[in-house]
Amino acid sequence: MALDLEDSPALSLAASLGSDIVIRDETEIARYCRDWHGDVSSSAVAVLRPRSTQDVAACVKACRALNLAIVPQGGNTGLVLGGTPDDPAHQVVISLERMNAIRNIDADDFSAVVEAGCILSELKDAIADKAMFFPLALGAQGSCRIGGNVSTNAGGINVLRYGMTRELVLGLEVVLPDGSILNGLSTLRKDNRGIDLKQLFIGAEGTLGIITAVSVKLTPYPDQVATALLGLASLEDAITLYRRARRDCCDLMSAFEFMPPLALTLAREAIPDLPLPMSGDYPAYVLMEISGCGLVDIQDLMERFLEGVMEDGLVLDGTLASSQAQAKNLWLIREGMNEGQAKRGAHMRSDVSVPLSQLPAFVRDAEDAIHATLPDCICVSYGHVGDGNVHLNCLPPSDLSAADKAERIYRSKTVLNEVVDQYAGSISAEHGIGRLKQMDFDTRLPEVKRRLLTAIKRAIDPDLVMNPGCQLNLSAES
Amino acid sequence: MALDLEDSPALSLAASLGSDIVIRDETEIARYCRDWHGDVSSSAVAVLRPRSTQDVAACVKACRALNLAIVPQGGNTGLVLGGTPDDPAHQVVISLERMNAIRNIDADDFSAVVEAGCILSELKDAIADKAMFFPLALGAQGSCRIGGNVSTNAGGINVLRYGMTRELVLGLEVVLPDGSILNGLSTLRKDNRGIDLKQLFIGAEGTLGIITAVSVKLTPYPDQVATALLGLASLEDAITLYRRARRDCCDLMSAFEFMPPLALTLAREAIPDLPLPMSGDYPAYVLMEISGCGLVDIQDLMERFLEGVMEDGLVLDGTLASSQAQAKNLWLIREGMNEGQAKRGAHMRSDVSVPLSQLPAFVRDAEDAIHATLPDCICVSYGHVGDGNVHLNCLPPSDLSAADKAERIYRSKTVLNEVVDQYAGSISAEHGIGRLKQMDFDTRLPEVKRRLLTAIKRAIDPDLVMNPGCQLNLSAES
Repeated sequence: MALDLEDSPALSLAASLGSDIVIRDETEIARYCRDWHGDVSSSAVAVLRPRSTQDVAACVKACRALNLAIVPQGGNTGLVLGGTPDDPAHQVVISLERMNAIRNIDADDFSAVVEAGCILSELKDAIADKAMFFPLALGAQGSCRIGGNVSTNAGGINVLRYGMTRELVLGLEVVLPDGSILNGLSTLRKDNRGIDLKQLFIGAEGTLGIITAVSVKLTPYPDQVATALLGLASLEDAITLYRRARRDCCDLMSAFEFMPPLALTLAREAIPDLPLPMSGDYPAYVLMEISGCGLVDIQDLMERFLEGVMEDGLVLDGTLASSQAQAKNLWLIREGMNEGQAKRGAHMRSDVSVPLSQLPAFVRDAEDAIHATLPDCICVSYGHVGDGNVHLNCLPPSDLSAADKAERIYRSKTVLNEVVDQYAGSISAEHGIGRLKQMDFDTRLPEVKRRLLTAIKRAIDPDLVMNPGCQLNLSAES
Repeated sequence: MALDLEDSPALSLAASLGSDIVIRDETEIARYCRDWHGDVSSSAVAVLRPRSTQDVAACVKACRALNLAIVPQGGNTGLVLGGTPDDPAHQVVISLERMNAIRNIDADDFSAVVEAGCILSELKDAIADKAMFFPLALGAQGSCRIGGNVSTNAGGINVLRYGMTRELVLGLEVVLPDGSILNGLSTLRKDNRGIDLKQLFIGAEGTLGIITAVSVKLTPYPDQVATALLGLASLEDAITLYRRARRDCCDLMSAFEFMPPLALTLAREAIPDLPLPMSGDYPAYVLMEISGCGLVDIQDLMERFLEGVMEDGLVLDGTLASSQAQAKNLWLIREGMNEGQAKRGAHMRSDVSVPLSQLPAFVRDAEDAIHATLPDCICVSYGHVGDGNVHLNCLPPSDLSAADKAERIYRSKTVLNEVVDQYAGSISAEHGIGRLKQMDFDTRLPEVKRRLLTAIKRAIDPDLVMNPGCQLNLSAES
């Protein structure tokens, strides 16, 4: 028996943690080792599913005792392989999915405390019941979990109004690489007691510890929302419109997404009976949302804004949703565009950012560079204008072989990243680095930054047990 | 000559850095070694006044070569002795006051890049010329410098709308303890390339490096401002009013300050001819500001809000400023209250925070506890309601001796901090820790947090040269 345990780390884990927590079955393990897009599937020594913060601490200690590395996982909806193991013989997945309680909602304090495994939409729904709002809004919100959102510093469509996840976090509870618990679940708005440790774990993608619970800021629920789809002459005009909208609409915009004309075609390919509210083929489209509550008449604000910008010729055509159903249909164009791309098969997806004022020039340069290298491919550029965040994707011809498509994807990404570098942009605006972008991150990392990141990693996780290969690729010796 | 240099580190600094940068004259040095309140005066080996980031790097290297510790200093307006040296024979002040350029204002990008030594109000004025706004607003804004604001993560009156300084920072340039330069002056809105290093330096009070430049977020200039002074029945009602105002006013509030009735008396003591717009003596006062730009009529919004809350009896009396001059007079009550306290002589000043929903109970408990211990003292509690931030001060009788006043100040602070602990509050909401609160911080520091902070400090500043004695008190051996 003792020999068995030594031979099988999974059995040892089960012996020390109990079979309720430890998954050893390979088929079950596989479910936690596939990525969201289905591009990668791997395995792991075991999957651990703790039910409490104490359980997580025990899991970490048990893994350490067996010299196993740890890959923390939330909803496994990440897009950069940050939560997917890649060393089946030495890595254990710790899934937070059973730590999904909402510990407290305090509407009087405009705050909530929630466990890392809580699904984002469940938090949003529970809070809406109290007329409160948690602004993080993502395509994956029905599956992603708040601990993962914090670990990736998730963005989404409401960033221009409410900020990234970082700006919504008041406190964190974290299990550290030595199994100790950092209890920082305060809901204080203002707390300048020295260096703000929680900031290190936000966006660290589980490389410094495991976030087990989060206290978050809430805002009043915006019960008024005005949504419009607008046709414009160019992306430059979309930027001009954004600037004017921030001023005219008193910074009450909650979304400002730009899309190319192809978006409408792609959306129809995904959703054939989708009503398209606008005739004509404008060079650029903007999906704009203003939201608020109380005594400000949001619909009236949007109407007066649109009157002005149409009179001035900045907006060529527009549809203002007059019901929630109509607003939903406008958003379906945005979502259908994504599905339409997926239907055309494997393609290059990106998530880059540049300074707002340079966004139109960047998109033109990047698309031109990709077309010059890959004339048979189609670019689709869309994104969150106000954040300078573009998802500039590249679709190879549908009839290419998988290998040819993979080659086009690789080359288009390389060309794109070169243009991003020219604009001093970011190769990851909101998705993180994970394992997928580790090399691209590494080759661009200035020496001073590398030294600091390495020093911090080694100070907090000296034995490199937390999510090895994610963000940094350090070895025990160096 | 060689012996001279060895004997006098100041001379050695002058020899390597030049007399333009190095101040050796004791009288001149003294100016940089007094704190804002004038409570403390010290000295230093020398004061260095670099003109560029390269200069700062050279200064750091020169200090290190001579085994001298470094105290970085901005406008020297801090309230916790974070920038004041306390070891004259071994510490050098590096003042950023000559690095005061605004490197760039890009209104199209809603961003600016500014050197650490730029005075806050000069940045605000330069930006206002372009119809843009930098929201940080402090009493000291005519003297404080942006690098110091970032190093302390300054708060101020607009936090409830725009956040602390941390939320206004897009990027940092930092000279590290080894003299290398971390160049992170990006203006990207969204950048999830791994751990966000700049967060470590925000609020670190110069213990990890010297901030030399900052890129900041700008917002559209709020050209409409509505200001009202309101009388209420209690602090509880002020909290209720705040919650309702957030919803009714669509989160467009830019200030919400509460004051006790004594505020009006103190303001009159400081400014005898100050017009007091309100008759009667209400148990609580709120100074409220809504601001915005564009198509939302802010004055109308305030009027409709006040109508509703007065009809409901939540607000007993109110004055809405009908001109900028009137608004300024209302703010003079808030400022005069501070001056009035100063005129009554030495007193206990605090800067604490508790969860918003517990603020009224906390203020009552803390004032009761202080009165019970020090029945001859008067408490003045005021602050930023929406942030849960109270400045709960305690005024000893004017005719006490300096020693007796100091004793009252010490005891009232001790009693206050005990009540803060009971409410799981913060002993420093916005002023930082510095040297003044180092002991109070230290005794409350949980072991796990202490280990992390120490590990990070030693990882980035292994020889403990940056601002020793500030925040942490580490020694080379331990």
